Amino acid sequence: MRTPPQTALADAYARVRAQTLALVAPFEIEDLVIQSMPDASPARWHLAHTTWFFETFVLQAFAPRQGQSYVAFEPAFAYLFNSYYNGVGDQFPRHRRGTQSRPTVARIRQWRAVVDEAMQALLADPSDEVRRVTTIGLHHEQQHQELMITDLKHALCTSGLPPSVIALPSQPESAPKGGWADFEAGFIDVGHDGDGFCFDNELPRHRAWVPAFRLARDLVTNAQYQAFIDAGGYADPCHWMSDGWARVQAEGWTAPLYWRRDGEGWSQVTLDGVQPLAPHAPVCHLSWFEADAFARWAGKRLPTEFEWDRAAQSVDPRWPTAAAWHADAAPSNASIRHLFGQVWQWTASAYRPYPGYQPLPGTLGEYNGKFMHGQLVLRGSSCATAVDHGRPSYRNFFPAHVRWQFSGLRLASDAKGN
Amino acid sequence: MRTPPQTALADAYARVRAQTLALVAPFEIEDLVIQSMPDASPARWHLAHTTWFFETFVLQAFAPRQGQSYVAFEPAFAYLFNSYYNGVGDQFPRHRRGTQSRPTVARIRQWRAVVDEAMQALLADPSDEVRRVTTIGLHHEQQHQELMITDLKHALCTSGLPPSVIALPSQPESAPKGGWADFEAGFIDVGHDGDGFCFDNELPRHRAWVPAFRLARDLVTNAQYQAFIDAGGYADPCHWMSDGWARVQAEGWTAPLYWRRDGEGWSQVTLDGVQPLAPHAPVCHLSWFEADAFARWAGKRLPTEFEWDRAAQSVDPRWPTAAAWHADAAPSNASIRHLFGQVWQWTASAYRPYPGYQPLPGTLGEYNGKFMHGQLVLRGSSCATAVDHGRPSYRNFFPAHVRWQFSGLRLASDAKGN
Amino acid sequence: MRTPPQTALADAYARVRAQTLALVAPFEIEDLVIQSMPDASPARWHLAHTTWFFETFVLQAFAPRQGQSYVAFEPAFAYLFNSYYNGVGDQFPRHRRGTQSRPTVARIRQWRAVVDEAMQALLADPSDEVRRVTTIGLHHEQQHQELMITDLKHALCTSGLPPSVIALPSQPESAPKGGWADFEAGFIDVGHDGDGFCFDNELPRHRAWVPAFRLARDLVTNAQYQAFIDAGGYADPCHWMSDGWARVQAEGWTAPLYWRRDGEGWSQVTLDGVQPLAPHAPVCHLSWFEADAFARWAGKRLPTEFEWDRAAQSVDPRWPTAAAWHADAAPSNASIRHLFGQVWQWTASAYRPYPGYQPLPGTLGEYNGKFMHGQLVLRGSSCATAVDHGRPSYRNFFPAHVRWQFSGLRLASDAKGN
Amino acid sequence: MRTPPQTALADAYARVRAQTLALVAPFEIEDLVIQSMPDASPARWHLAHTTWFFETFVLQAFAPRQGQSYVAFEPAFAYLFNSYYNGVGDQFPRHRRGTQSRPTVARIRQWRAVVDEAMQALLADPSDEVRRVTTIGLHHEQQHQELMITDLKHALCTSGLPPSVIALPSQPESAPKGGWADFEAGFIDVGHDGDGFCFDNELPRHRAWVPAFRLARDLVTNAQYQAFIDAGGYADPCHWMSDGWARVQAEGWTAPLYWRRDGEGWSQVTLDGVQPLAPHAPVCHLSWFEADAFARWAGKRLPTEFEWDRAAQSVDPRWPTAAAWHADAAPSNASIRHLFGQVWQWTASAYRPYPGYQPLPGTLGEYNGKFMHGQLVLRGSSCATAVDHGRPSYRNFFPAHVRWQFSGLRLASDAKGN
Repeated sequence: MRTPPQTALADAYARVRAQTLALVAPFEIEDLVIQSMPDASPARWHLAHTTWFFETFVLQAFAPRQGQSYVAFEPAFAYLFNSYYNGVGDQFPRHRRGTQSRPTVARIRQWRAVVDEAMQALLADPSDEVRRVTTIGLHHEQQHQELMITDLKHALCTSGLPPSVIALPSQPESAPKGGWADFEAGFIDVGHDGDGFCFDNELPRHRAWVPAFRLARDLVTNAQYQAFIDAGGYADPCHWMSDGWARVQAEGWTAPLYWRRDGEGWSQVTLDGVQPLAPHAPVCHLSWFEADAFARWAGKRLPTEFEWDRAAQSVDPRWPTAAAWHADAAPSNASIRHLFGQVWQWTASAYRPYPGYQPLPGTLGEYNGKFMHGQLVLRGSSCATAVDHGRPSYRNFFPAHVRWQFSGLRLASDAKGN
Repeated sequence: MRTPPQTALADAYARVRAQTLALVAPFEIEDLVIQSMPDASPARWHLAHTTWFFETFVLQAFAPRQGQSYVAFEPAFAYLFNSYYNGVGDQFPRHRRGTQSRPTVARIRQWRAVVDEAMQALLADPSDEVRRVTTIGLHHEQQHQELMITDLKHALCTSGLPPSVIALPSQPESAPKGGWADFEAGFIDVGHDGDGFCFDNELPRHRAWVPAFRLARDLVTNAQYQAFIDAGGYADPCHWMSDGWARVQAEGWTAPLYWRRDGEGWSQVTLDGVQPLAPHAPVCHLSWFEADAFARWAGKRLPTEFEWDRAAQSVDPRWPTAAAWHADAAPSNASIRHLFGQVWQWTASAYRPYPGYQPLPGTLGEYNGKFMHGQLVLRGSSCATAVDHGRPSYRNFFPAHVRWQFSGLRLASDAKGN
Repeated sequence: MRTPPQTALADAYARVRAQTLALVAPFEIEDLVIQSMPDASPARWHLAHTTWFFETFVLQAFAPRQGQSYVAFEPAFAYLFNSYYNGVGDQFPRHRRGTQSRPTVARIRQWRAVVDEAMQALLADPSDEVRRVTTIGLHHEQQHQELMITDLKHALCTSGLPPSVIALPSQPESAPKGGWADFEAGFIDVGHDGDGFCFDNELPRHRAWVPAFRLARDLVTNAQYQAFIDAGGYADPCHWMSDGWARVQAEGWTAPLYWRRDGEGWSQVTLDGVQPLAPHAPVCHLSWFEADAFARWAGKRLPTEFEWDRAAQSVDPRWPTAAAWHADAAPSNASIRHLFGQVWQWTASAYRPYPGYQPLPGTLGEYNGKFMHGQLVLRGSSCATAVDHGRPSYRNFFPAHVRWQFSGLRLASDAKGN
Repeated sequence: MRTPPQTALADAYARVRAQTLALVAPFEIEDLVIQSMPDASPARWHLAHTTWFFETFVLQAFAPRQGQSYVAFEPAFAYLFNSYYNGVGDQFPRHRRGTQSRPTVARIRQWRAVVDEAMQALLADPSDEVRRVTTIGLHHEQQHQELMITDLKHALCTSGLPPSVIALPSQPESAPKGGWADFEAGFIDVGHDGDGFCFDNELPRHRAWVPAFRLARDLVTNAQYQAFIDAGGYADPCHWMSDGWARVQAEGWTAPLYWRRDGEGWSQVTLDGVQPLAPHAPVCHLSWFEADAFARWAGKRLPTEFEWDRAAQSVDPRWPTAAAWHADAAPSNASIRHLFGQVWQWTASAYRPYPGYQPLPGTLGEYNGKFMHGQLVLRGSSCATAVDHGRPSYRNFFPAHVRWQFSGLRLASDAKGN
């Protein structure tokens, strides 16, 4: 979502909030309660946490200053639905979110309605600060929309009885064209530019030197990844980072998450039940360790985040919104295909601050800054990302072992003759 | 529940099965899904498992022999809802029961209805084996009724926002009369007698020698237990078994489960929300370690299960059904009060087989026999036990650290002058 | 060791203390430092802890009262070498004993010499209390002699390179005669009798009723146990307690500890390196779970500790010292063979106090009493027990999963026609 | 150690190998056996592993090709002393190295002597490959010399009775001068240059752009770090990475490793026993989390590894050997002091490969490449580094939570006016 023009903020608020509820509509109450692993959260919790965000950082912070009173809907929620903001108090333990049934989903919906009404009152004539934090809150909610989908997918697709909940789009019938785009060495400007919204981790914009490199025009597909499996990729430590190999062995990885060996072939567990594996679709639900091992096995490597950025800038120097790039919207002759809207693309880059990085002031400074250790950058966006949420400067990040996100890869290599 | 006369079995079936559903009626769907600790199960799971029991051990085993066909409602349930019977296949991991949302509660209710209909058809003219196993299944379901209540209580009373779901009965207003009953040394017959139903662990009936002892007429109360806390009982290792002291330290025990220090005094989290502690009610939700430490601190000890049995036999040599003993039904001048219907009473006895013990034939032999290690016997019954479920020979058992059952204690000591 | 006559206490002290050092003589310093699992301790620690016992409970407690001064050799040892006596202070964490190199073995020997000299001074004219506690200390040291051997055996026999340190005695060349001894029902007196030393857990002597039973004249042999393995005993849960089966799976048990499959047959890792399995020797290094499963598979059961006691009393009503019973000293026509001196024999009895049990006064009350939960009784003695340490009333105890002790079994069954 | 001229290789071999033994000379055998935590290894193991390296990668690989036979000293050592090279076989579990006593230290010394003799025979007329791998082996041994010291220090300084083993050098009596050196933006060449030895992770040399920055002339001192402690630095999450704060809480960090609060002040546990904290010495034994938190609290940041490199290059454009830079050898008017020889300096840079990185061919490719994930780069060298081992391009690396290395920090900040 781009930062909305002033008059449109209330509309954007209504739209984003409604979209969150629309996403959970096809699921059963039971689905919204469970937590299938410590990294995931119940959908129930996402519904509440995104509401807590507006209540805590907008309504309680600013309503009184704007002459409106706001009393917390239920004081215990401050503890239950704080994710990780030490600056506003303690947090209910993350790994135990799935042990809670109260407040019920119905009660959380009530809370959402109360907060939404108060927000709309505030947005009738918002101060700059209200606009600024509300905008962050909407982007925050869009992030949780994607997390909610990945968490629900994990819960249902790893369950003992995976149901069909959502019809899936059709899959590509032929292999991508392939090929490589070559890039000369040079300086690029990295980081967000212009008036639109961005997170603090996309700033400051700064100059970076990028040596010459090649980037694959297409994402790696299921069929290509299957060749790695067939070649014994999961059985040979020589392809893997040491920590990755330890994961392969400890967790018994033999394929991407949700793949199931099905006689001779493979199928995939999806939110539409078990489906045959689509060979030409981008491979998805890979950990960084798997993406990195595949690239090494293929004699290539992952691109750095600056290489990815360089390529994205080349496609359209005006840096269009991600929406314009989405899957079908992208020009078929684009030199680099599917930068957005299919799978997040693991990069070779550790997630560290840009030179001169400053976290947001106050407690919201905990949003990104304190996580700039032990994670890898992903670029682009996925099929589960809100269409107006991505942008070329967007820096997503996860630890190297994580597989439940919509994460895949695009290969890179050093420039020919390098 | 006593074994019903032949014509009444179908009625008993209908009554017990309906009671299970009645117990969950006041709860929300969300409450039925969660698992608050590995020892507990979601109520959703109890509803399904008790149904699995009849489908597996009665319908699939006997319907064809009686000329009726029965097809499993959903084959995947055989794995999902098997608790621990290796003889009929693998089991879904117990500690992950709370990560599952499917089948939904509605779907499980459908299953219950289908199984109930098939069972009633079978019970119209049941073979002896059908009668035998159905009767076990009903006692099994009554055990799960109590477990379901203890599990729901744990889930809601340890939650971040304990709700009021069920109105509690009024609490005693005065302290019990106290006093001790003295028993001479002698032989008693131990184990179940008569035609009624019993579990295999209550057999064979055999002669046992019980030295002279004294038994408290009343259960230990909250006020008495609080004196132990006030005297620093949780801070002094000299009262505790070594393993118990390790638990006290590792889990930070300072009071029975669900007690909360409330300024000067104490309150208790209940299914009716947070309530003031009732000083004259029996202390409840104690581990064996706590019961044992309290008794040592008081200069007494726990009774052996044979001492408890000896006392129960003394009250009424005809061994009435437990129902006749229940709380208010017991004669006010009973020499030993509240043997049944308040709290299970920890004994000093390790749970081991009676001499000559034989498990049930076939897979149901796994019901009790394989757990006769590492647990302690509790005798009596609790406020959460079905009224027609307990009996004097009943042997309940749990590990020493367990606190979420309705477990309390009654003191004993060696005979005067011993 | 029996309690020595008054004049002989100093001699007994010298002999027992020297024996401890003799036992470690064949080992390297490195062997004395390591801890191969949390249940075991470094031999270095045993050498120090047994010395700490005399320094703490005799020298520091009584030397001043007898007009002798004693200053602790090194104050830090009070913490480092206290095993589990909360009454005299905190304890260095047990599972980290193998992370310590200081004091060195040489320094511990110095300490032993200093304590021994002070003890001999005290024993020249000891008070009754000094005699009482010194005698406990010597029996305590004999227990640690056996533990030291079992711990060294575990450390070297599970190591990557098991050495030959000690020559083993020759093994029996033929199968034992077998057969059963029958016992009528009756009362026996259980518990220690007479003037000799015993631990508090052997008291009070009391009357117990023992139903009729049969007891195997011989210990179960390696060959007999191998038949259980060959029959798939480790692969079928139906033989096992539930907790035992969980251990089998979690730890991958397929044979007793130290057995190695060796082509077609089996060998055993010993303190004399890897040796062929001796078929007619008593099976050893079994957990209670394995002993119990074997007995169930064989259609028999373990004896209770009272049954074992009844049989031991039958052999010689005067209850001779265990020494007279030892392996070769036992009369060849004894009705029950090898009660002592070969392997400790697991019983069916949980380790609980005798009726009227009183722990020793003061901190030494922690010696036994606080461990009377969660363990099983073993009777007899082993090849690693000091010859004058065992006695018919001796109650050894370990948790059910423990395998590194010299533990085997003798079968029992209900009386014929029962 | 620089790569020795051809004729000097045998001498270098003798010198480095002797130095390893000289380092353990002051310690007791017991000290060489223990493992105080999974990250550390027994000194015994280091003595063996470094020998295994030459036996495996030089003698067994090349002796036959040079017409010399070499038979492995003891085949079991191939498994016991392989650290992490999957290419040559399985490895004994790292965290259990301290549970092994065999081979004894004496036996390992024998092995060293046998290998040394065979190596000297080979080095009399070595092939290029023998020279290449032997040189790697000597640098490898020097790395283990430092690790052996850090591991022994951890074992003895965290023990219950820290001994005095080694006399420490005198500590600085006054605070360093302080001040900042300013660097303009510009390109630098990064990576090793010239004929000397380097590890594969220092290559390829490549051009990098470094924005303008400032670097502290001095290392942060104990006194400066104590101000952070006194200001409550360990109690306020706002200074810490999220993972770092989790460590602070889980492990109870309140000061650097080995610091002890001593009444009003602080002392340090050292290999010379407990010593008063030297206020003007560089702070040492910090995790990256602590270094990063201190820098944030101080309003500064850690330098990137390229900034550190840029500064090192500025001091002497000819890139002298690290030896010439060592502590006292460095010119007192150096603009950046103590780059080498005091403490390794944590940088802001994740440990990732240089562009175009190629691991060594064969199994030695596992030396560095597979660890290029989840770690941070440290630059410089420490008081425990062999004097001829460091160099400006040296990239040391450890995970962010590690504290037992000789690790400290030097502050950086963005250029004035940036």
